Amino acid sequence: MTDALNVLEIAEGYIALWNERNDTRRRDLLASNWTRDARYVDPLMKGEGPDGIDAMIVGVQQRFPDFEFALLGKPDGHGDFVRFSWGLGPRGGDNPVKGTDFVVTDGGRISSVTGFLDQIPG
Amino acid sequence: MTDALNVLEIAEGYIALWNERNDTRRRDLLASNWTRDARYVDPLMKGEGPDGIDAMIVGVQQRFPDFEFALLGKPDGHGDFVRFSWGLGPRGGDNPVKGTDFVVTDGGRISSVTGFLDQIPG
Repeated sequence: MTDALNVLEIAEGYIALWNERNDTRRRDLLASNWTRDARYVDPLMKGEGPDGIDAMIVGVQQRFPDFEFALLGKPDGHGDFVRFSWGLGPRGGDNPVKGTDFVVTDGGRISSVTGFLDQIPG
Repeated sequence: MTDALNVLEIAEGYIALWNERNDTRRRDLLASNWTRDARYVDPLMKGEGPDGIDAMIVGVQQRFPDFEFALLGKPDGHGDFVRFSWGLGPRGGDNPVKGTDFVVTDGGRISSVTGFLDQIPG
């Protein structure tokens, strides 16, 4: 079960993972906050398990070397479910890309993320 | 897989189900558009299988006899996933309650709905 504190922790930890460019720290975050069979899917990419998800995140970091993710608004959740919106853009600047992620947790760890895009540059 | 047409059909069919007050037609919609093991959960209620989901919808209709659901914005989806936002309010009036539903489909039928509330009267 997720309570308000866990919801925020899950959302903030998720954003921190996407922004972590140190390989060891990123893999530690995946190991401690995600289940071993976790899967991620959005309209552009997918990843399965810590290795697959890590490779996917590294790919995005390489494609957008000067961008970082930020949590937008207030994450909310109920039961094992969490949702929150995020922005992606140059550090300290606007967010040209925005999205909303639906997260399923299992024992407090992320087991599934399904992402949707709310805004992409025209 | 959902394409743009299916996404709209799924979202519109879903809203139509919540608004359908004829028992036979509502159960027909559930039988044709949802899987037999479908489940629904939001912060306030849950239902499992066509019978459980039907009972839940009837409960909401009885609680809000003059309200109806409307699709807000444009539903979107990818793979087997669909999301859309909705409003609930008096027929033809404002929508004091708003939410966003995240739907998983299986073979074109709804197998899972996880709902979140975006706005509730203060």
